[in-house]
Amino acid sequence: MTHFDCDYMAGAHPEVMRRLVETNMELTPGYGTDPYTRQAKQLIREACGCPNAEVHLLVGGTQTNATVIDGLLARHEGVLAADSAHINVHESGAIEASGHKVLVLPGHDGKVSAVDVAQYIESFYADDTYQHMVAPGMLYISHPTEYGTLYTLSELEALHDVCHKAKIPLYMDGARLGYGLAAKGTDVTLCDVARLCDVFYIGGTKVGALFGEAVVVTNPTLLPHFFPLIKQHGALLAKGRLLGVQFATLFTDNLYLRIARHAVEMAMKLKAAFVERGHRLHIDSPTNQQFFVLPNAELDRLSAFASFELWGPRGETETIVRFVTGWATTEKEVDELISNL
Amino acid sequence: MTHFDCDYMAGAHPEVMRRLVETNMELTPGYGTDPYTRQAKQLIREACGCPNAEVHLLVGGTQTNATVIDGLLARHEGVLAADSAHINVHESGAIEASGHKVLVLPGHDGKVSAVDVAQYIESFYADDTYQHMVAPGMLYISHPTEYGTLYTLSELEALHDVCHKAKIPLYMDGARLGYGLAAKGTDVTLCDVARLCDVFYIGGTKVGALFGEAVVVTNPTLLPHFFPLIKQHGALLAKGRLLGVQFATLFTDNLYLRIARHAVEMAMKLKAAFVERGHRLHIDSPTNQQFFVLPNAELDRLSAFASFELWGPRGETETIVRFVTGWATTEKEVDELISNL
Amino acid sequence: MTHFDCDYMAGAHPEVMRRLVETNMELTPGYGTDPYTRQAKQLIREACGCPNAEVHLLVGGTQTNATVIDGLLARHEGVLAADSAHINVHESGAIEASGHKVLVLPGHDGKVSAVDVAQYIESFYADDTYQHMVAPGMLYISHPTEYGTLYTLSELEALHDVCHKAKIPLYMDGARLGYGLAAKGTDVTLCDVARLCDVFYIGGTKVGALFGEAVVVTNPTLLPHFFPLIKQHGALLAKGRLLGVQFATLFTDNLYLRIARHAVEMAMKLKAAFVERGHRLHIDSPTNQQFFVLPNAELDRLSAFASFELWGPRGETETIVRFVTGWATTEKEVDELISNL
Amino acid sequence: MTHFDCDYMAGAHPEVMRRLVETNMELTPGYGTDPYTRQAKQLIREACGCPNAEVHLLVGGTQTNATVIDGLLARHEGVLAADSAHINVHESGAIEASGHKVLVLPGHDGKVSAVDVAQYIESFYADDTYQHMVAPGMLYISHPTEYGTLYTLSELEALHDVCHKAKIPLYMDGARLGYGLAAKGTDVTLCDVARLCDVFYIGGTKVGALFGEAVVVTNPTLLPHFFPLIKQHGALLAKGRLLGVQFATLFTDNLYLRIARHAVEMAMKLKAAFVERGHRLHIDSPTNQQFFVLPNAELDRLSAFASFELWGPRGETETIVRFVTGWATTEKEVDELISNL
Repeated sequence: MTHFDCDYMAGAHPEVMRRLVETNMELTPGYGTDPYTRQAKQLIREACGCPNAEVHLLVGGTQTNATVIDGLLARHEGVLAADSAHINVHESGAIEASGHKVLVLPGHDGKVSAVDVAQYIESFYADDTYQHMVAPGMLYISHPTEYGTLYTLSELEALHDVCHKAKIPLYMDGARLGYGLAAKGTDVTLCDVARLCDVFYIGGTKVGALFGEAVVVTNPTLLPHFFPLIKQHGALLAKGRLLGVQFATLFTDNLYLRIARHAVEMAMKLKAAFVERGHRLHIDSPTNQQFFVLPNAELDRLSAFASFELWGPRGETETIVRFVTGWATTEKEVDELISNL
Repeated sequence: MTHFDCDYMAGAHPEVMRRLVETNMELTPGYGTDPYTRQAKQLIREACGCPNAEVHLLVGGTQTNATVIDGLLARHEGVLAADSAHINVHESGAIEASGHKVLVLPGHDGKVSAVDVAQYIESFYADDTYQHMVAPGMLYISHPTEYGTLYTLSELEALHDVCHKAKIPLYMDGARLGYGLAAKGTDVTLCDVARLCDVFYIGGTKVGALFGEAVVVTNPTLLPHFFPLIKQHGALLAKGRLLGVQFATLFTDNLYLRIARHAVEMAMKLKAAFVERGHRLHIDSPTNQQFFVLPNAELDRLSAFASFELWGPRGETETIVRFVTGWATTEKEVDELISNL
Repeated sequence: MTHFDCDYMAGAHPEVMRRLVETNMELTPGYGTDPYTRQAKQLIREACGCPNAEVHLLVGGTQTNATVIDGLLARHEGVLAADSAHINVHESGAIEASGHKVLVLPGHDGKVSAVDVAQYIESFYADDTYQHMVAPGMLYISHPTEYGTLYTLSELEALHDVCHKAKIPLYMDGARLGYGLAAKGTDVTLCDVARLCDVFYIGGTKVGALFGEAVVVTNPTLLPHFFPLIKQHGALLAKGRLLGVQFATLFTDNLYLRIARHAVEMAMKLKAAFVERGHRLHIDSPTNQQFFVLPNAELDRLSAFASFELWGPRGETETIVRFVTGWATTEKEVDELISNL
Repeated sequence: MTHFDCDYMAGAHPEVMRRLVETNMELTPGYGTDPYTRQAKQLIREACGCPNAEVHLLVGGTQTNATVIDGLLARHEGVLAADSAHINVHESGAIEASGHKVLVLPGHDGKVSAVDVAQYIESFYADDTYQHMVAPGMLYISHPTEYGTLYTLSELEALHDVCHKAKIPLYMDGARLGYGLAAKGTDVTLCDVARLCDVFYIGGTKVGALFGEAVVVTNPTLLPHFFPLIKQHGALLAKGRLLGVQFATLFTDNLYLRIARHAVEMAMKLKAAFVERGHRLHIDSPTNQQFFVLPNAELDRLSAFASFELWGPRGETETIVRFVTGWATTEKEVDELISNL
């Protein structure tokens, strides 16, 4: 049995684990005031080419989204996001629980378009009753998206421009950012992300860490009191150095990108094998999530050999499935799966 | 230099760490649906003598308090707590951020008395305008308290009775529960806690784990939809098994209590040494937090050898200080400190 | 110049005003504990054929929706509503500000269908990840809708059945309920509404009162602590008797329905005149709001004689407009408008 | 039977009522865009000597406090207020429901002192852990206080200075402001209030209006998006002109102060009579609320002739009572009460 359910099934990359063990009995002060956290922040700033960025290390994705969005929005504002956005669908209403509406934009394979954003904002302010409606106060995007797709550099630049013009911040959910940066053919680098987004986070949970997300605030005036907000949202880890040690390891010797690249290679091999055997792609993803359309008989047969996610039925006889690789996926596992196709 | 600042300066107990390393490359499903989490929950239920309890594993204390309290209270209700309660002072307004008032009771060395609770509730409903006021909807206590003090069994029973009579749940914040259960002379066992509280949590962060708090709901009808609330509060760990592995280890072979006992012994040795040298106790704590009154000159001198927390001035010439031991405190460190007194 | 912008341009019906003046210098206790409020509640219970209903008198529509919905939902739940629902579009995020997501259903001329509701709920619980999503906790409908349309009795019964089956309350926003009950051809009576909805409100602001909405809770176990919630939402009027006097007047001698009937008659006369002159209906509304498609030239010409609302462009050369009548609209005004068509 | 329970037992001043009747059948646009509202705002700005102030007309006190405070505070901030503050005691947790903690200062007969405020802020930032605590983000005072007492001009100036120095806004709850300005011996004028407070409101509900509170923002940069917040808080009256007509009337020919002065005179007459008969003052209030200590036998006897509020027992044999006059209190009623003393 091989497992392709999701990218958070294993623990941490062995190198990360090794460092956690090595430092385990050290005594350091809490809440991110330790030297490992300082080091991690510095390494991340360097990797982003953004020496003035503020970096905050939080534990998980939903809490990171809720805390950042709560910090960026005024009370009368909401957050623009694709209909398929994680914050709109899979966070149990965390955004609304902190008082803000998710303003839904049409998703194009998980992405939003600058044209749609511009039009939403223009229509909004053209409406005489806009003061009775929730103002668009920021834009949320995910990269890779929930469908594994990626923005091109020019798409990101267009989103940056439309946000800049409307004076709303652009925030990127990078839960799987590594897998996006490591994708073949992408023209988006980490420095581009840092240059174009006001705030984004570098996902650790799904890319080599036990847990952890590094929020990079490239425009620190936007989040002047973020620390108490992290605490208020229950997102402040007492032993903050656990996050510092992990991110410092991931951003040493390019480990973060190296392990992401491996995961994407495994995904590409798996995709090629499915396509070769005549299976259709549901979405053509260049990253570690792959979506196929499988005949239901094949799905049943395959379930005996591998675990993966059912994404929903497609008509009467087919099902959309998701296979996810990660830094921990071995070539052996992929080969075993392929041999069972 | 020895460190007695707090009980979250080290990583995890080596046995916990060993199990995390051992299981690191296993692939398990997320969000607490893995076998380690199941095992940990079962071990905790057994340790509590409470086979029907529901157990939830969360990451940190503030998020645990916010999530539980939000789940237990109706919208028009607030939470009764001592003035010194962690939720009233040191959680950046997390309770209020989810919409609820902290209703302040007088603290007696960090504890609330059943008489005060009864009187608050009686006065409340005796007031003609009570419908315009925030109703007391639950009682929050910490054990040990923020001052290291402990409830006696009969005090806990009295609190249970007054809550039961008023039909409000009793919730115990057990961030340092281990150090309370391990205290010499306490007549309160874990089974007592489980019998007398509707909900409580067993703190892992400060007692041997990297992080983690185990919420025990002995009266599960009170929190019928806790899972989505955990997610909404950003308190759901993707790799839930990390919590499962840690708590399963801590509740195997009585590890949790054994390491807590050691910490308390270290604290008692330290206390005795201070007292022997003529220093006064600010509060007489039987657990791992010790509060002394130090002359300012002694404080300055001692700071060269040890780190500890300044709790506030006492008049012009003295300062209250807090020394904290933990499972990781070695006898060597304590002896070194004592030699410097 | 005649005015058809909306149904809250005049003050109160003269009979309501007369009673407010008559009782003006009386001294009564506050917050709805006065005899006028008691009388109004009793008259409303009788009009609803619902002797056990609880009735609460609030000031305005947005606050009523926010308070009721906040009272009905658990923290992990959201409210199902049509995309065009007032709570989803025109209440500045009041629902989200109290922590709840609006779960959007497709609107059919402002209405939701029982089939869509059933399917939403079924799909929701069929999804393995539903615990990470916002649970549908109640259904919001408006009657008349924001487009002036009405549910038939069988449609309402179907909605009642689907909610009952799913064990979620059905709530009706009756901001313009009078105009719905007074519509020609409707088979829905106030008693039907009371029988089929768990909670609904009878709009006063738009139907004869200076302000005021009467919340009828036909299933009082659903809102056990509604009074403090009203206060908490800032919706408790100090001089509660102002609401009592107004609703007691409106529910004496059938005044509420009589004045609503007049408004609908004026709307029908106006509609007939537009249609006669060859203008198309945007939506065929049987109530006091009428939506027409006007050539832009005609719109400009008409604007010199009458004020009305622009609902949005329809292609390049036409515009959708809304004309609203109310209890205060005179036949003379309608005739004057018609003469200018 | 005479009534001295509170100052919201009657309707509106006859002149206010006359204007409401006169304008009743006029048609005006909603939500405060009408000419009466414009006129009222202009009159208020003039009365305040503050031509650049922004004025917003809301319906009631609790909603006004909740909306203003929500607008002034950042998410990590709380509001400083006396323990007896209305927002801390009698608003059903409305402040907390919008996410903010009330930070309690000692009350001195309902007032806070500049020294206490300064000390709170100084201690707060002196605490190493202040980032884990709720930051003092504004100061709330009431004038008159809940005990009828008044700040002197120099006390207000000191509060202004301490807030200014700490860069936090000073907000005054003026639910009974008229009765404060009309008090004999006060050296605080409306222009002083406007000069010293960043935001305050002029209470209409208790001083001549049916309902209504006029929020004066003397520092409009502090509340840049107040309109949607009013709507979000359910505090936007559809027929906004009702507020405009009432406040325009109250601020024409000095009506507001004239009727307040009468109420205070009645209160002084009543106080003198109680004192003359040997009854002790609980608090020496110069405004329309009077607090006496009555022997329980006298209380029982008096209850047959007059209604008033029981404020709480004082020992075994005495009770504190509150008698309130208002603009509608007649000299005849006061004389009748006195004759029964």
